[in-house]
Formats: sequence, structure tokens, C-alpha cells
Amino acid sequence: MNPASVGIVETQYLDLPGSLRLDSGRTLRQVRVAYETYGTLSPARDNVILVCHALSGDAHAAGLSSAPPEEGTRDGFAAAGSPKGIGWWDGMIGPGKAFDTDRYFVVSTNLLGGCRGTTGPSSVNPDTGRPYGSDFPVITVADMVRCERAFLDSMGIHRLAAVAGGSLGGMQALEWATSYPDQVDTIVVIASTHALQPQGVAWNAIARESIMRDPAWQGGDYYGTGRAPDAGMGVARMVGHITYLSAPSLAEKFGRRLQSGDDIRYTLHEPEFEVESYLRHQADSFVRRFDANTYLHLSRALTYFDLRLPEAAKSITARTLLIAFSSDWLYPPSGSETIAAALRDEGKPVELHLIDAPYGHDCFLLEEARQIPVVRAFLHEGRP
Amino acid sequence: MNPASVGIVETQYLDLPGSLRLDSGRTLRQVRVAYETYGTLSPARDNVILVCHALSGDAHAAGLSSAPPEEGTRDGFAAAGSPKGIGWWDGMIGPGKAFDTDRYFVVSTNLLGGCRGTTGPSSVNPDTGRPYGSDFPVITVADMVRCERAFLDSMGIHRLAAVAGGSLGGMQALEWATSYPDQVDTIVVIASTHALQPQGVAWNAIARESIMRDPAWQGGDYYGTGRAPDAGMGVARMVGHITYLSAPSLAEKFGRRLQSGDDIRYTLHEPEFEVESYLRHQADSFVRRFDANTYLHLSRALTYFDLRLPEAAKSITARTLLIAFSSDWLYPPSGSETIAAALRDEGKPVELHLIDAPYGHDCFLLEEARQIPVVRAFLHEGRP
Repeated sequence: MNPASVGIVETQYLDLPGSLRLDSGRTLRQVRVAYETYGTLSPARDNVILVCHALSGDAHAAGLSSAPPEEGTRDGFAAAGSPKGIGWWDGMIGPGKAFDTDRYFVVSTNLLGGCRGTTGPSSVNPDTGRPYGSDFPVITVADMVRCERAFLDSMGIHRLAAVAGGSLGGMQALEWATSYPDQVDTIVVIASTHALQPQGVAWNAIARESIMRDPAWQGGDYYGTGRAPDAGMGVARMVGHITYLSAPSLAEKFGRRLQSGDDIRYTLHEPEFEVESYLRHQADSFVRRFDANTYLHLSRALTYFDLRLPEAAKSITARTLLIAFSSDWLYPPSGSETIAAALRDEGKPVELHLIDAPYGHDCFLLEEARQIPVVRAFLHEGRP
Repeated sequence: MNPASVGIVETQYLDLPGSLRLDSGRTLRQVRVAYETYGTLSPARDNVILVCHALSGDAHAAGLSSAPPEEGTRDGFAAAGSPKGIGWWDGMIGPGKAFDTDRYFVVSTNLLGGCRGTTGPSSVNPDTGRPYGSDFPVITVADMVRCERAFLDSMGIHRLAAVAGGSLGGMQALEWATSYPDQVDTIVVIASTHALQPQGVAWNAIARESIMRDPAWQGGDYYGTGRAPDAGMGVARMVGHITYLSAPSLAEKFGRRLQSGDDIRYTLHEPEFEVESYLRHQADSFVRRFDANTYLHLSRALTYFDLRLPEAAKSITARTLLIAFSSDWLYPPSGSETIAAALRDEGKPVELHLIDAPYGHDCFLLEEARQIPVVRAFLHEGRP
């Protein structure tokens, strides 16, 4: 075991006592939240960091899971060299790391709509006794944050030293800072945005179309039918995966190398180029661990998200750390710059770090070494 | 009728007398070629320009078709303001235009593997009397050019003043210059490349996966079954379409505007953002006019294409004009720069024009006004 690891952890579950009122006007009841915690809650309960995962993550953010899953959530370029069952943000969470478990009590939940323990479309609808499927309500990032707030209330935690996340996780941090400004001291928003750019809206729409056009999707009610829209979700994942990487990083990793030595095989069906084979592998491993309806709902939610700047900057009081990556064309640095400018215009404390790195959006999971000192320094600031 | 139009044209058909030997080792016989011509062949037969279309084009490059098709081949941003039935390169071909029909005899063919009149997967296989479907051979850009060479032989044309095309069309022009160096005076290669970059390989693989994973594809033998992989090809087209545009041009055209006024409707099924609705429209109109197997074969061929620089530059003798667009991230200017450098290193005559324009790869169809003087000057050079 790596000395900087939080060790072996087991995902736990908590059932929210009340019901959850959603932006759409609908209500969810008997909501279960899957979560993990790392570190020790201080007697004053003032050392809590909530980490929020992105589209394909789960509650298992750090350490090794007691029962390693079939497929890890660290995939793509990040899978290389990672032990099976390691948390998706293990490089950032642990003793002496960015989110230092010697100091902080780090809480990670699977978000609302998820498929890894928290109530989502594949959960049983208490009204019918069957999985929600097509009846799961359309949710928003604000709904996810409402769920996290209710979960923390149940845990007796009423104030957060920090909310942190990348991508969709960063949107949740921003939403926390605007929805509950008096309950959040700092937010750490990595490779995220106040509102997805139209090209990102398009990529997400394409991914959803690919799932919904798969006849096995069956309008969303595929649970228990023995069929699932794996084909469509595989394509959705391929689209997502390429948007998470940069063209130069693909060129460096794969070039135009062929699968079978020097010669093409004149085939439509089989991968000819290594990058084609890689894409298939990414798709196949993703569909084994992820639910298509969850993909649809989370994709929809992150597309909807709009912080409504510059007005929203007025309500934010949390110190804000923004980290963006030069090669991230899905969540380009301009988004972080817009947020920073809006906060500065309101005289709010904000730091923006642009990290020059080649791996695209996935930098937020791949470039941990350069994020750690930035996050540590930011969290430490103003503390004894 | 616009005075600069070639007028109303009718696509014609020619059956090649011999058979066509392909790179794969297979042979196609009874190959039909759909074509159009504009202008007048000179008595010396020395004024012929062959224009080569890209993935989704056809032989109807200029003028108005006598029977306007249901859906034009000018689509996407280029559809705006275009009359129904107008050729895909009408802005470039005609009296006084870039490819000046007062001077040149312009020939346009539907390429091998196509679905608009030239033999392709949807054509009847003379060996079986049924459409080729899965039995259509995997083809290459060199095969397309071989077909064009055989077609021109049948027309009594043995020398070309120019071969011109954008994207996959530009690959054909490059292939002409290396396969038949003594038969081509000049080539005009627009928004193209010597070899698709790995990210482009990936996008094409995703598009093909989307088609082949559609159960209606039926392994390629869907003709006559009453089903076609429209769902999968729609997604393929969406992917392609977004890669043809730039993020800023999408932002400028659509922003994050909603379909229904100010409010989201909390729906997975319906488009919420204008860009989502636009994508569906593009997909729907494309599947009405294009064959999925043709898409697979042309995508495969353009992925395979590799001019093998710098060696290939030795064999090229044609004067070469390269045009690239600053915002084209699918066929980035670096590809044209690589070709230009290789030709210059061999002391070959080459001009590279980088046009600063915001519309991505589709610039080659949208930014005609700035290409016309460049192409005219290049073709005129060295002529009385």
C-alpha cells in the first residue's frame, strides 16, 4: 500500500429522510446516496471537503475499493499504471495530497441520477416497485447539489470548508457557491465552465442521440428486458472520449499506426488503425460499468447548467480557485476566464491557474502533479 | 438564371468498357460512372479540368439540375440562400468563375463507391443480379482515381489541365499527381491533407461504428429489406457535421439559444437548444439522400489515404496549389504546410494559400469569394 493512500475503503449508503423537490417541479422520495469518506471529521465539524465527480465517476474517489470493480473508473489514458479498484481522484485525495486527509474530512458522493449506488434511473421507483426507467425525472445540476445538501444535513454537516470538482463536478461546486453561499468557504473548480459552449452542447446531443436511437434503449425502459443500448452508448462514449483528449495527444499516442504491422487489410468491420482499436476498447469497458439512462440524464443536466454570469457572481462569497488547461477544447480556458472576470468585477476573491498541458479535458485527471501544490496552497491560505 | 451560371444540366452516365482492378486485389466489372460537363472541349483537348467531390457530394457540381433532388448536396451553413438543385461547387464553376467555363471544359464525376449514379455498394452486382451490399470491395482513393482515369479514357481525354477538389476531393487530386504525373498539368488541393491526422481517423471510425452498430445495417445487406441504418447514419452525419464546423462559428450561429423561448422543458427526447434541433435536421435530410454503405466505404478510403511524403513529392510534376483555412481543425493547415514543404524540398512548383476564415473545414464550400481569385490566377499562370 502506497503510504500516501487512504487505504482500503468501502462505499457506504445513506437514505435521505425527506423527499427531494426538483427544478422540474417533480419530487423524488426514498433517495439513497452512495458515499465514501476519507480522513477524520474535526470536533468543530469545520474541516469538511465535498468532492463532486464528473459524468462517468462515482463515490469511490480515493483509496482502493474493498471489492475492486470489473472495470475501474480510471480509464482512457489515466488507466495506464493504475491499480484495479483505485479511486478516480486518488492522486489528489490522501495524506499530504491536494485534499489532505491529515487535515480534512473528505466526503465523496455518487451524484443524483447516478448508477453507482445513488438513486438514478436504474433504481427502483418506490411508487411502482420497478426501476424508474423512462419515468425518472429530468434533473439539473442544482438538483444534484440539493441532494448533496440533504445528504450532508443527514450526516450532521452544515458547513463546507471546500467543494471541489472537475468538469460536471466543477459545475456542482459553482452551484454550491451560488445556492448556499453562506455554507461554503471555498470552491475548487477544475476544467469546468459557467455554461457549456454550443459545440459542447452539440457533442452531448450527439451522444444522447446515439443512445436513444439504439432500439435496445426501448424508450428508456430496458431494465429486465435482457437488452440494453450498449451499441449506442458505446458510440456515445467514443464521442465523449475523443472530446476529452486533444488532437496532438492522440497523434503522439497513436499516430497512424496500423493494428496489423505495415499493411492494411481492406476491412470495414475490423479496426485498421490502433486508435480505432483503442476506441472500441474504451466503449466496451464503459458499457460494462455504466448505465445508459444515467448517461442521458447527466449529459442533459450538464448541458442545461448555466451559472448566469455576471449576475451570479454577486451572490458568491466563497473564495474561488479555478484551474483550466491550455489544450482543453471541450471546456476551454475561456470559460474559466469568464468566471474569474465576473468575480473580480464584483470584488470577489478568485484565483485562476491556467496549466499548459497537452492532454485536453482529461488533463484534470492526468495532470495531478501540477494541480496538487496549487490546490494545497489555496486551501491552506487564511488557515493557521 | 444567374448570368454566371452554367445553366440547367443533366447528369449523364457512361459504362466503362473494361474492368477495374482495385488495390485490394479484387476487380469490379461493368462499372458505371455518373458525370456532368460544363464548358466546351477545345479541339486540342487540352482544356480539361476534372473536379473531384468530397464525401457527401456527387457529379452535380455546377448549375441547376434538370430534376432538382429532394435534398440538395449543399447543406449545413452552405444551404442558406442556395436555390434547390444547385451544384455543390456552383460558386466556383461557371463563366468567369474560378474554374472558368468560358475557357475550360470542366468534368465532374460521382466517385467510385458513390450512391449518386456511379457504381457503389447499392449498385447491382453483375455476378448476382442483386445489390452488392456487403460484397462491395473495400476501395481506396487510388481506386477512385483509377476509375476517373478509365472514365476519361472513354471520353477520349488523355491529359488534364487541372485536377481540383476539396477534402477527399483534394486527396484525389494529390493521387492523380502521383499516379499519373505526366498527365496532369496542375492540381488544386483545398482543405485537404496528405494523410488524415489520428483525431480525424477517430472521428471517421466513430461515424462508421455508428452505422455498423445500427441493427438495420444488417451487415451491409439492407437493400430491399425495407430497413436501412438511418438512425446510425444520422448520428454519423451529426459527428461529421460538427467536425466540419468550428466552435466559434457554432457559437456565433446558435449560442445557447433555446428552442422554446426562455425556458427549458425538462425533456430528454426533444431538442432544447437550437443547435440540437439543427443537428437533427442535418441528420434527417442527409439520410434521405445518401446511402450508408457508401458512407462507410468513402470514410474508410479517406482514412486509408496516405501520400507517403516526402518520397511522393519526387514523383509529382504538376504545378500545385494548396489552399487551407485557419479554422479547419479536421484538415488543419499543418497538413497543407507539410505537403508544400515536401514539394519545395524537391524544387517542385507549389503555392500555399492560408485563408483566415472562421467556418472550419466547411470553409472550402463557404469561402468561395476568396478562393476564386487565387485559383484563377494560379490556373492562368503560364497561359497566354
